[in-house]
Amino acid sequence: MKRIGVVDTTFARFDMGAAAVGQLKRLKKASEKMRVKRVVVPGIKDLAVAAKVLLDEGFDIVLACGMVGSEPIDEQCAFVADLGLQQAQVLAGRPILGVFVYEREARDEQQLAWLMERRTEEHATNAYNLLYHPDVLLRQAGTGQRQGFPDAGPIRVKR
Amino acid sequence: MKRIGVVDTTFARFDMGAAAVGQLKRLKKASEKMRVKRVVVPGIKDLAVAAKVLLDEGFDIVLACGMVGSEPIDEQCAFVADLGLQQAQVLAGRPILGVFVYEREARDEQQLAWLMERRTEEHATNAYNLLYHPDVLLRQAGTGQRQGFPDAGPIRVKR
Amino acid sequence: MKRIGVVDTTFARFDMGAAAVGQLKRLKKASEKMRVKRVVVPGIKDLAVAAKVLLDEGFDIVLACGMVGSEPIDEQCAFVADLGLQQAQVLAGRPILGVFVYEREARDEQQLAWLMERRTEEHATNAYNLLYHPDVLLRQAGTGQRQGFPDAGPIRVKR
Amino acid sequence: MKRIGVVDTTFARFDMGAAAVGQLKRLKKASEKMRVKRVVVPGIKDLAVAAKVLLDEGFDIVLACGMVGSEPIDEQCAFVADLGLQQAQVLAGRPILGVFVYEREARDEQQLAWLMERRTEEHATNAYNLLYHPDVLLRQAGTGQRQGFPDAGPIRVKR
Amino acid sequence: MKRIGVVDTTFARFDMGAAAVGQLKRLKKASEKMRVKRVVVPGIKDLAVAAKVLLDEGFDIVLACGMVGSEPIDEQCAFVADLGLQQAQVLAGRPILGVFVYEREARDEQQLAWLMERRTEEHATNAYNLLYHPDVLLRQAGTGQRQGFPDAGPIRVKR
Repeated sequence: MKRIGVVDTTFARFDMGAAAVGQLKRLKKASEKMRVKRVVVPGIKDLAVAAKVLLDEGFDIVLACGMVGSEPIDEQCAFVADLGLQQAQVLAGRPILGVFVYEREARDEQQLAWLMERRTEEHATNAYNLLYHPDVLLRQAGTGQRQGFPDAGPIRVKR
Repeated sequence: MKRIGVVDTTFARFDMGAAAVGQLKRLKKASEKMRVKRVVVPGIKDLAVAAKVLLDEGFDIVLACGMVGSEPIDEQCAFVADLGLQQAQVLAGRPILGVFVYEREARDEQQLAWLMERRTEEHATNAYNLLYHPDVLLRQAGTGQRQGFPDAGPIRVKR
Repeated sequence: MKRIGVVDTTFARFDMGAAAVGQLKRLKKASEKMRVKRVVVPGIKDLAVAAKVLLDEGFDIVLACGMVGSEPIDEQCAFVADLGLQQAQVLAGRPILGVFVYEREARDEQQLAWLMERRTEEHATNAYNLLYHPDVLLRQAGTGQRQGFPDAGPIRVKR
Repeated sequence: MKRIGVVDTTFARFDMGAAAVGQLKRLKKASEKMRVKRVVVPGIKDLAVAAKVLLDEGFDIVLACGMVGSEPIDEQCAFVADLGLQQAQVLAGRPILGVFVYEREARDEQQLAWLMERRTEEHATNAYNLLYHPDVLLRQAGTGQRQGFPDAGPIRVKR
Repeated sequence: MKRIGVVDTTFARFDMGAAAVGQLKRLKKASEKMRVKRVVVPGIKDLAVAAKVLLDEGFDIVLACGMVGSEPIDEQCAFVADLGLQQAQVLAGRPILGVFVYEREARDEQQLAWLMERRTEEHATNAYNLLYHPDVLLRQAGTGQRQGFPDAGPIRVKR
C-alpha cells in the first residue's frame, strides 16, 4: 500500500488537485494498492506545512500544486513557497513534488488552463512512477523530460 | 476546542490584530468552542518566533499579520520574515497564515487601510474554515480566490 | 528575573552594544530584576550563532546589533545575517530583536551615528517592554511605530 | 567499504548519472571497496531529499547531478535546489557534491554535452578523493581547480 | 585546550588554509593549548558541511575560507554557501567565521593574493581572540574594524 498526498490551493484558477487525483486513479493498476488524500489550503505559501503534516502522518510522497500570479510579489511568494517545500522534504526525509505553473508561462487563459492540467498530470505520473516503477525514471535519466510543454530531448557528446 | 493565535506589529499603520480577532468572533457559531490569543511584536521579522511560541504552546493555527513599507529594504525584510514563517510552520508542523499587506499595493492611505482590514478579515475566515470547515476550502479549490482585492475566478480547459 | 543578551560587532562604527546596555539600565525600575550580558563578535554574520548560544543558556531575549556597509556585498551580508537570525529564533523558541542600521540610510557620518544610537535605544525599549510590559506593545499595535526616524502614525478606514 | 550515492534527473539532457557511475568505477582500485547506488528523480529540486535519504541510509557522500535550463525561472529553481542541498548536508552531517551545469555556460548543444560529462567526471573524482585520498585535496588546496573548463591556477603574493 | 578547525578549498587561487594555520601558530602563546585541524574541500558550497562535522567533533570554532569567482553564478554560489554557514553554526551552537574574498574586490591578481592572505590572517586573529581573549573584541566594539582593507574607524554622536 502506497499513500500519496495531494495539496492544492484556492488561489489557483484551475482545479489542479482534481487533475492530480484523476491522473493517479487512471494510472493505478488493479494489482496496486494506493491511498490518496487531498488537502486544500489558501495559497502556495501554505503548501509546505500541509505537505509536511501529510508526510509526518506516513504518506510516501506529496504532490504540492500551485499557480503563481504574474505580479513581482507573486514570483517572490513562489520563491518563498519553494524554499519551504525544500525544508519540509529534507526534514521529513520523503519527497514532495512541487507542481508550480506561472501565469506568465502561458499566452492566454486558455493555454494557462491547459498547462495547469497537463503539468499536474505529468507530475502525478512522476509521483506514481517514483513509488511503483522507479525503473521508468531510470530509463528516462538525462533525456530532457519536461512537464507540460514538449520534452527537450537528449544530447550527445561527439567523439 | 480550537485555539487560534493572532500576532501583529506596532510597525503596521492599521490595527490588523483587532481586525483578525473581530472577524474570528463574528464567524464563531454558538456551538463552536474557540480560544483566541493575541500577541503584539515590533515588526514583521518578529512574527515568526512569536507564532512558533504559540504553536509550541498548543495553538492549532496562527494568523501572522504585518504591513510592508515601501522602501526596498522593507521588501527585503518582508522576504526574510516570510522565510521565517515557512521555517516556523514546517518545524512546528502546524500552519501559520501570513497576512502581509504591501504599502505599494494601495494608491493612497485610505485604500491601504481598507486593504489591511479586508485582507486580514478574509484570512481570518480562511483560518476559521481550515479549523472548523475544511470542506469550504475544498469547494473553493482552483477558483481563483483572493484576499482583499476581487477574486480572479476560475478558468477552464477548452476541449 | 529577566535575562537580556546584547550582541554587537567590531565592524560597526558606533558602539551599539553600549547604547543598548545603557538604555536597558535606564529603563529598569528598582522593583525589576534584570541580568544583562554583552558579547562582541566581528561582523553581522556572526550575530546569529552568538545570540543562539545566549538563548540556549537561558536568556529570555537577545538584541542583535549591527551596521550594514554601503557596498552591494554588504547588503547581501545583511540579508544572510538576517536569515540566520530568523533560524536562530525559530529554533530557540525565543526572540532576537535585530537592530540593523544601513549606512545608506544616513546622509552623513553625523546622522549615521545618531541613527545607530537612537534605533538601538528604541529597540532596547522594545526588548524591555516585551519582557516586562507587553501591554505597552498591545497599546501600540497598528500605530506605525518606527525605530530611529519619526513614527509613521496610524491610518483609518473611512466608512 | 565506502558507499557513494549518485542522484540525477530526467530533466537533464545528458546522462550525468551514468557518467558519474562510470568514472567512479574507473577510479576504484582493486584494493578499495566501494558501493555505488544510483537514484533518478524528475528535476533538480528533487535532488536534496533523495540525497538526504541516501545519507540517512548510511551513504558516505552523494553526487547530486543536474542541468539548469536557460530561462530565468530555471535559474531560480537552481538556487532553490542548491539551498536544499545545503540544508540536507548540514542536517545529515555528511557531504553532497552538487554537480550543476547551466545551459548558458555552453555555446551550443555539443559543448553542453561535453561540459556535462566532463564536470560530472571531475566531481566524481573529487568524491572519490574525499573518501579514499583526502591528501590529494590537501595538495590541491588554493590552486584554482575547476570542474569542466580549464583550471584557473594559483596566484602568489609578491614580497 | 581550544580546538580550531580550518576548512578551505581547491577552487581558491591562494592557499588560504595555510595562511590561517600559519597565523594561528604565530598568535598562540607558550602558555596556551591549541589544536588545529585542517580540511580541504572542492568549493565554497562544500564548506558548511565540513565545518559542521568539525563542530560536531568538538571543535570550538571553525574558519571557513573561500574565494568567490567573478561570474554572476559565482556570486550566487557564495550566497548559497553563506546561508549554509549560517545554518551550520546555528544548528551546532558554535561559531564558524566565514572568510570570503571576492575576485572583483581586487584590481589584479597581485592585489587579490595579498587580500586573500591578509583577510585570512585577520580573521584567524579574530578566531584566536574569540576563544582566548574575548576582552580584545569588547574593546574593539563599534570601532569600524575591517579584515583586509583599512579599518573604517569609529564615528561619534555630536551633542
